[in-house]
Amino acid sequence: MNIQTDIDYIALARGLAAEFALTAVERDQLGGTPKQERDRIRESGLLRLVIPTAYGGSGESWITAFKISRELARADASIAHVYSYHNLSVIIAHLLGSIEQKHYFYSETVRHNWFWCNALNPLDRRTFLARDGDIFRLNGVKSFCSGSKDSDILPITATHKETGEFLVLALPTQREGIAIQDDWDNIGQRQTDSGSVTFDNVIVYPSEILGRRLGNNKPFSTVRSLLTQLNLANIYLGIAQGAFEAAKNYTLPSSRPWLTSGVGNASEDPYILKHYGELWVGLQAAEALTDKAAELVQTAWEQEWSLSAELRGECAIAIATAKVAATRSGLDITNRIFEVMGARSTHRKYGFDRYWRNLRTFTLHDPLDYKLQDIGHWALNNEYPQPNFYS
Amino acid sequence: MNIQTDIDYIALARGLAAEFALTAVERDQLGGTPKQERDRIRESGLLRLVIPTAYGGSGESWITAFKISRELARADASIAHVYSYHNLSVIIAHLLGSIEQKHYFYSETVRHNWFWCNALNPLDRRTFLARDGDIFRLNGVKSFCSGSKDSDILPITATHKETGEFLVLALPTQREGIAIQDDWDNIGQRQTDSGSVTFDNVIVYPSEILGRRLGNNKPFSTVRSLLTQLNLANIYLGIAQGAFEAAKNYTLPSSRPWLTSGVGNASEDPYILKHYGELWVGLQAAEALTDKAAELVQTAWEQEWSLSAELRGECAIAIATAKVAATRSGLDITNRIFEVMGARSTHRKYGFDRYWRNLRTFTLHDPLDYKLQDIGHWALNNEYPQPNFYS
Amino acid sequence: MNIQTDIDYIALARGLAAEFALTAVERDQLGGTPKQERDRIRESGLLRLVIPTAYGGSGESWITAFKISRELARADASIAHVYSYHNLSVIIAHLLGSIEQKHYFYSETVRHNWFWCNALNPLDRRTFLARDGDIFRLNGVKSFCSGSKDSDILPITATHKETGEFLVLALPTQREGIAIQDDWDNIGQRQTDSGSVTFDNVIVYPSEILGRRLGNNKPFSTVRSLLTQLNLANIYLGIAQGAFEAAKNYTLPSSRPWLTSGVGNASEDPYILKHYGELWVGLQAAEALTDKAAELVQTAWEQEWSLSAELRGECAIAIATAKVAATRSGLDITNRIFEVMGARSTHRKYGFDRYWRNLRTFTLHDPLDYKLQDIGHWALNNEYPQPNFYS
Amino acid sequence: MNIQTDIDYIALARGLAAEFALTAVERDQLGGTPKQERDRIRESGLLRLVIPTAYGGSGESWITAFKISRELARADASIAHVYSYHNLSVIIAHLLGSIEQKHYFYSETVRHNWFWCNALNPLDRRTFLARDGDIFRLNGVKSFCSGSKDSDILPITATHKETGEFLVLALPTQREGIAIQDDWDNIGQRQTDSGSVTFDNVIVYPSEILGRRLGNNKPFSTVRSLLTQLNLANIYLGIAQGAFEAAKNYTLPSSRPWLTSGVGNASEDPYILKHYGELWVGLQAAEALTDKAAELVQTAWEQEWSLSAELRGECAIAIATAKVAATRSGLDITNRIFEVMGARSTHRKYGFDRYWRNLRTFTLHDPLDYKLQDIGHWALNNEYPQPNFYS
Repeated sequence: MNIQTDIDYIALARGLAAEFALTAVERDQLGGTPKQERDRIRESGLLRLVIPTAYGGSGESWITAFKISRELARADASIAHVYSYHNLSVIIAHLLGSIEQKHYFYSETVRHNWFWCNALNPLDRRTFLARDGDIFRLNGVKSFCSGSKDSDILPITATHKETGEFLVLALPTQREGIAIQDDWDNIGQRQTDSGSVTFDNVIVYPSEILGRRLGNNKPFSTVRSLLTQLNLANIYLGIAQGAFEAAKNYTLPSSRPWLTSGVGNASEDPYILKHYGELWVGLQAAEALTDKAAELVQTAWEQEWSLSAELRGECAIAIATAKVAATRSGLDITNRIFEVMGARSTHRKYGFDRYWRNLRTFTLHDPLDYKLQDIGHWALNNEYPQPNFYS
Repeated sequence: MNIQTDIDYIALARGLAAEFALTAVERDQLGGTPKQERDRIRESGLLRLVIPTAYGGSGESWITAFKISRELARADASIAHVYSYHNLSVIIAHLLGSIEQKHYFYSETVRHNWFWCNALNPLDRRTFLARDGDIFRLNGVKSFCSGSKDSDILPITATHKETGEFLVLALPTQREGIAIQDDWDNIGQRQTDSGSVTFDNVIVYPSEILGRRLGNNKPFSTVRSLLTQLNLANIYLGIAQGAFEAAKNYTLPSSRPWLTSGVGNASEDPYILKHYGELWVGLQAAEALTDKAAELVQTAWEQEWSLSAELRGECAIAIATAKVAATRSGLDITNRIFEVMGARSTHRKYGFDRYWRNLRTFTLHDPLDYKLQDIGHWALNNEYPQPNFYS
Repeated sequence: MNIQTDIDYIALARGLAAEFALTAVERDQLGGTPKQERDRIRESGLLRLVIPTAYGGSGESWITAFKISRELARADASIAHVYSYHNLSVIIAHLLGSIEQKHYFYSETVRHNWFWCNALNPLDRRTFLARDGDIFRLNGVKSFCSGSKDSDILPITATHKETGEFLVLALPTQREGIAIQDDWDNIGQRQTDSGSVTFDNVIVYPSEILGRRLGNNKPFSTVRSLLTQLNLANIYLGIAQGAFEAAKNYTLPSSRPWLTSGVGNASEDPYILKHYGELWVGLQAAEALTDKAAELVQTAWEQEWSLSAELRGECAIAIATAKVAATRSGLDITNRIFEVMGARSTHRKYGFDRYWRNLRTFTLHDPLDYKLQDIGHWALNNEYPQPNFYS
Repeated sequence: MNIQTDIDYIALARGLAAEFALTAVERDQLGGTPKQERDRIRESGLLRLVIPTAYGGSGESWITAFKISRELARADASIAHVYSYHNLSVIIAHLLGSIEQKHYFYSETVRHNWFWCNALNPLDRRTFLARDGDIFRLNGVKSFCSGSKDSDILPITATHKETGEFLVLALPTQREGIAIQDDWDNIGQRQTDSGSVTFDNVIVYPSEILGRRLGNNKPFSTVRSLLTQLNLANIYLGIAQGAFEAAKNYTLPSSRPWLTSGVGNASEDPYILKHYGELWVGLQAAEALTDKAAELVQTAWEQEWSLSAELRGECAIAIATAKVAATRSGLDITNRIFEVMGARSTHRKYGFDRYWRNLRTFTLHDPLDYKLQDIGHWALNNEYPQPNFYS
């Protein structure tokens, strides 16, 4: 495979986003799997974005990866979701596996252009792994498995029945006994297939067991929760940016000045201007903090196994800060845009409510209150959050 | 018709609301006309609620009428919408018509159990009335005609082609030339049929022309915008109360404590408790202000033609104040409930997003910013708002 | 003493407030004891306001008492503070004492026109009572003793050295061994003398020991914390109303329109109008909730020993709700008024910052967060707060 | 004068700030002129900070200058104010004067270590310049002349009596006829001497007339309002940072856990932690935006006369955005810190209210509402603000 190191991946993503935008409203109403869009991503080469060049990947930084999450989210938060979780999953063997596993999963992903998904959900402890001779058997059910449908590899967490260890596995989605349930029908992120997956006596080979989540005490092995959290912040921000842009494009030609406003154009209404000013400030703050955190995280990533607990902690706080800002600004924007557009903007053909539904759904990934508690604990007591699946 | 003066209409409405609640989520998804529910209202006797007893009505106060709007809105804001606009429309001849017209429309409504709707939308000036011998002809189109489908009487505003007067008419919905368009497909208030109605050379008899909107300078003739605004506040409040109740009923059995919360139950989580506390305070404030305004408005209504501009102004400010409080508290509640319920509450089967979609849609009826400007003008400059279609 | 039952005490208080307003800015800067104002209150007859007519008091309701707190606070929050704590203290024997003690303290207060203060502060546990033959001796120190200077009676909490009971006493301020420290020099409520009092082997007669705070399980005996909390809400509201009024009186003649505002007068500036609108809505909400709570509390008071835990709980929630609304609206108003007045309003001669300093200081009496937690616990779990010194 | 290019000016400022902090509470209460501190600045070499090295200055960037404003403001916002206005004034001849005037004022400032102040206030149009033979005479009064007392040079705006031009002058403060009024006694920024200055037939030499404010149409000549606005943002941010730090240093050893909190330490209270988290996020956002704007502004400054209107506009929006964020975060922090410290933190010895008083006063420099309008106009209509004295 020919590595083109000079590709502008962000522009490439922007092009795809423009394409996806054309059908985003319609697909939001349909729900289900964005099969065609997933295939367009497959064709684009973006599935090897963060894979190191040594393994045939593009070797792009997380800074680029997050910007792509954001660009996609402006147009279609579901696709941003499933694509970015591919990036977050393709590195699991790097963090938790052996050298061989890292090599295998990186190389094979490039070779077969595998599309990963996310079936890790560590809060759902209903999957169990049991030894069966030289192999293992996996049974149980896992919820919130985003992007599992039409995926090639499923990363899964499961409890070892004998040792009680909480392990991470990576299995081919097509393996016998794995059944993806069509039970994702939620108010937002409707094309993420974030439903449940059942495992019925599924064979697991030892080489597919990557290791213990958070199981060694190297800071680098706990880096995925940072990447996940910052990816969330970027998607939230992208949704907010998309909503802002959509509102602007509506207000200018379509909104009408209020009868007592004394202005001839909605775009001169003092209150509408102030709303736009406030929304803009929120957006700029979220963007500045999200970009700052990305630079810090990339530095941390590059330090790999020499990453210190302190820098990891600094990242965690910067990310949590960005996430809070993106969440709050985004909820404000996706809610308030209607006030600068007016009653007629609620027609379903515009699909302007999908920004709020997507953001409202995805911001419940883990509670903002505890993110703020973590930050407060740092700000007041100078203590970094304990690494866990969310911090 | 036998008048039962001792009926507890609020309890009656509550009973209907409980019934409508069973299908509210499903009907929200379907959109369209709540035909069965409209017929249940027809059967209930509620269509004569505010009609004076002298005309065979129930003679209930606006205080009761608004409470019923609220009760219905807790369960189904679309039905609250179309039913309450019946009450707001059935009085039009009382405010703007001759004694005969008042008598006619009240009596005939009782006799035929007419269900009125709302096609007044004064911001849409595309309907014109032209003299045609002894009668008139109405042509044009009117948008946002809530409840027009399955209605019996349409109150309409139209411009007199020769005099330029802006008149109010009341026509049978079935009259030839009137066509209700099925073009309401919006993100909220989905069963209100608030689409457009076209008028193609529709005959209008002189007795159906009620008078000029705001055309005489008696404060009482401008009272309908007060009633409409306060009805909005009550529906907003009802939506918020419904959302709060739904959240509570979900959190208690279904929400899970966060992994670092240190509590065994979501209902003991300090942040969840504080959210509920804040939402409750907002709700109580909105309720207190809405109830206060209703008492003032009822007093104003009872003064009829002797109503002073000052008391009308006082009502306008009290109503605007209640509406601001209900809007803000409601948007906060319908958005924030998800944070106290958690990610799994976004499943579409619960329909919890309909509270936000309904409220977000309906609160765009007229801009809050100008409501606040009106209040500010009063609070700072001691001047009441000029009566118009919205103040 | 001749009881005039037809006195308009609110008007009387308003008259005093107008008088105190003339020197409020100056006295705020001085701090210390408002001796002259305290004497004006003594002369006014207001010290017997809530004492039952049977004991020669005016027998006014708490509704009236709270309105007076509010009226005074509009002009001078320090005086509202020290006067209202007189009312809250004069009833202590009624709640905690024997029939004889109740009779004695009510009657003697009327006879001598005693001015009570507040040295209860139950969080400060440094005062101890020890038996000394037939009498007791009190030693220790108590902080936050509002109004102690120039007072006639000190209600104090102290721990019984042998039994560990936490008791309430009422002692003449002039008794030997009691020393009021001049150590109140805080940023707000500067004329409340809320400093510390030391007790050096002070004689305490058994008749001066009123009983255990919260020591019996009758709801009525725990009613004082409700009265205290609602009094706080009223003073907060009064401060906010005073600030609003002051701002309005400044903006109209003195504020200048901004150079790009396009209006000729600050009073027509769209943003200034909206600020006033928002501040007004906050104020109306706080007032409505505070008034509603007062009616409920008066009902509870009148039920005396038959008061149920449920009605007490209902009061507690209504009061907490009002207090949250008054606190938040007040902090917003006392902070934001400067934005509608402009830079020149910061001159110290106006003393406009005292509203914020007073409110900021007094709202720290007990934390709002836990008030919201109490409300949330009720709203979510249907449980009333456990009666304590603050709930 | 020996130029030390390797001085760490920020560390130097931090050292001075630490020194000034020791007396800041006391001096805030006194008001008046911080003579000793002004002299310490004179000795420090900071008066030549932004003067180009070609004229013997330190040639430091605005990035450094703003960081110094911030460092000083953390400890003492008055001194940050008067010192930073020196920097903003020493460049006036550079922007508005001839080459000779630029040379003269830069060089002489270095030679005599002049301390400039600010008497420009363009909203106060009461100063007039009249020709008197070869010279001019200045008469009138100017308000808000920060740092005028103990200054060496006064930059003043005045209207040319004949031409009506609005001119900028720079006069020695000691010149006959100039009288600095001791009339600054405001609630915040108390040691800034921002009172009025009267001019009684003051001689003005033609060489002291620098030019027309905003009088040529080169973007660079309008750059001072950008620098001023961004300096404001930095001082607001510094005040907020100082307040945050002070609160933290108080909460840790001194705040007490609430009686129903269930924690042993205030620093573990969930609500206190969340407050700190929220305050921190606000602070980080304001800092990120302020730093970003500084980099942009420095780029613009370096382009000097080739600066484009577009880059100037971009700066204006970035600065306004930072200023809004710093203002809102700062007001929140300076107000809310009391809630995380508790009632005893209101003692005047701590002076914790000075953060709010300073910020509240200084944020009224020009209205935030119109800053938001400018931003909104850009965000919605893609139009940069018209350069004026504040944009």
